[in-house]
Amino acid sequence: MPKVAILGAGAMGSGLANALVEAGWDVNLWGTWLDDHLIDAIEEGRPHPRINVVISGKVRPFRSAGLEDALDGVDVVVVSVASQGVPKVTEMALPGIAKAKALWLTSKGFMPVDGKILLLPDGIRSIAKAADVELPPIVAIAGPVKANECAAGEPTATIFGCKSRDVAVEFARAARSEHYCIEATDDEVGVEICAPMKNVYAIMLGIADGLEEKTGKPHHNLKAATFNEAVREMSILSTALGADPATAYGLPGVGDLEVTGLSGRNKVYGVRIGRGEGAKGALQAMTELEQTVEGVPALPLAISLVEQSAPQIKDRLPLLYAARQIVEEDVPDYAAVLARAVLPPKP
Amino acid sequence: MPKVAILGAGAMGSGLANALVEAGWDVNLWGTWLDDHLIDAIEEGRPHPRINVVISGKVRPFRSAGLEDALDGVDVVVVSVASQGVPKVTEMALPGIAKAKALWLTSKGFMPVDGKILLLPDGIRSIAKAADVELPPIVAIAGPVKANECAAGEPTATIFGCKSRDVAVEFARAARSEHYCIEATDDEVGVEICAPMKNVYAIMLGIADGLEEKTGKPHHNLKAATFNEAVREMSILSTALGADPATAYGLPGVGDLEVTGLSGRNKVYGVRIGRGEGAKGALQAMTELEQTVEGVPALPLAISLVEQSAPQIKDRLPLLYAARQIVEEDVPDYAAVLARAVLPPKP
Repeated sequence: MPKVAILGAGAMGSGLANALVEAGWDVNLWGTWLDDHLIDAIEEGRPHPRINVVISGKVRPFRSAGLEDALDGVDVVVVSVASQGVPKVTEMALPGIAKAKALWLTSKGFMPVDGKILLLPDGIRSIAKAADVELPPIVAIAGPVKANECAAGEPTATIFGCKSRDVAVEFARAARSEHYCIEATDDEVGVEICAPMKNVYAIMLGIADGLEEKTGKPHHNLKAATFNEAVREMSILSTALGADPATAYGLPGVGDLEVTGLSGRNKVYGVRIGRGEGAKGALQAMTELEQTVEGVPALPLAISLVEQSAPQIKDRLPLLYAARQIVEEDVPDYAAVLARAVLPPKP
Repeated sequence: MPKVAILGAGAMGSGLANALVEAGWDVNLWGTWLDDHLIDAIEEGRPHPRINVVISGKVRPFRSAGLEDALDGVDVVVVSVASQGVPKVTEMALPGIAKAKALWLTSKGFMPVDGKILLLPDGIRSIAKAADVELPPIVAIAGPVKANECAAGEPTATIFGCKSRDVAVEFARAARSEHYCIEATDDEVGVEICAPMKNVYAIMLGIADGLEEKTGKPHHNLKAATFNEAVREMSILSTALGADPATAYGLPGVGDLEVTGLSGRNKVYGVRIGRGEGAKGALQAMTELEQTVEGVPALPLAISLVEQSAPQIKDRLPLLYAARQIVEEDVPDYAAVLARAVLPPKP
């Protein structure tokens, strides 16, 4: 029975814990210094506060002081914290990670290192290199996975991306169950680009929904054109950074954008903008409700990534730059800005 | 000012009429023998009964007896009737079509000719050949266009596909307006495959929504996996028939599937199945409400097309064959059949 330590007891870490129990794994779930109330609920058999699903009694919970115990003798370590927490948690867990057969990653985002925007696996590699620690293979996990459904054993498709295709296949087989089904790819870059980008683009999808609320008229044509342009831009950006163009057309791009556009805070934020609350006002309202909108911090990092690493494709990403105008510059004519970005230019 | 005769005063023909008026075209709109009540509304300036939008007073309506007048001196003829009506309307209009510079096609479907399933443009070509009439270039029109929004001047992205890329570009420029924006492609086959297939797949998307109603639990992961598999299968099928794989990843595939999954009768039919009404019972209920579900007649034609023209890819279309089991065989375990078709197999 493979043994895993999942670092981060939030929605995705806990959802994955249940999925891996179903697949027959021995699961340690470590909560960070921010997760005590989550571990309380898990220990007491109450539904997880973030996803309203009970975490299996077979999962062994650990509190932040128990990191060393949680990592003891595991085959796989999973980093499953918010992207801002990845550097610190990685550093803390490095000794355990170094002994494992693989490091999995469900965190989604970009990592600025000395002013340069890196994809998370490369950020983790730079941390390990600085500490002179040799890492096992990294497996990037993405795809259309709402954690609550994953935890509840609802049918879920996901994808494991590892530079070594054999490693991706090995774990995609080992972690598979009836409900949690896994594709394997060697396209780490494609998986890691789509994961945070789709949060940015889901805000834009939400705007089309909000325009319907504001005007009383459906804007389905605009929403579909936005979806189409988002997929195109994810493929263009990931390809420019060395990925397989097909990855954005599969589970990490098309699939994950679909699920992220159905519900979630990025979409809700977009709906508020579309309704006319103003990008800044809407963000403040959500912050007061303690609702994090992942796409907002990802947006300037994505723009920096493009300008540092793929400036030649700037002009081919009109929706990304429209997102900047709408979210960061809070332009009043956001509906026209969105439409201009996603409607085909004159051929 | 280019002059067009749109044949068929239903939702899409009338929506296109308004869009072309906005682009400065001179528009004749001909109603078939089934469209008299639609022409009544247009003549009286009432909202079009199918889309609840007033058709521009600049559109000249014609009744079925006035086909010859409607076709007189036009540059472009648009066939915009239900796919079953395409052969008859094409035959009736052939003299006018032969004199035009192009034949546009918004109808979506397949055409059985002597037992062989053809794409609509090839079906039209076979009709013209039998009548010894030389056709102008055919422009296939698809993409995420809800006719009501198109008619109302809401932002809309669409695509014109013609074997001659120059012709596609010429008309994509000429018909463009601020709200109706057009991509051009030379991939007629890709456009024509996606148009009817997405109706079939939208039924499957609806099932995921219906399962949420039935169980009280969201099935967003399943819906997103279904969306992803539908796009993949549209790309596989169109590629096998000679199309560019990218077409299914653009407006005709990804874009149109998105809009078709948001609303419309194919999706509603799927929701009813997902809720547990049974495929046959749900179809009967919708038929009694005079609600046509385009994906239902398209499904067996799509299966025949695959088995006649691309039998080597049968095994790569599990969602299409699951649709057959669910819609035609009315299997009671439709939720499991859908999940098996769209979740990744063991790698």
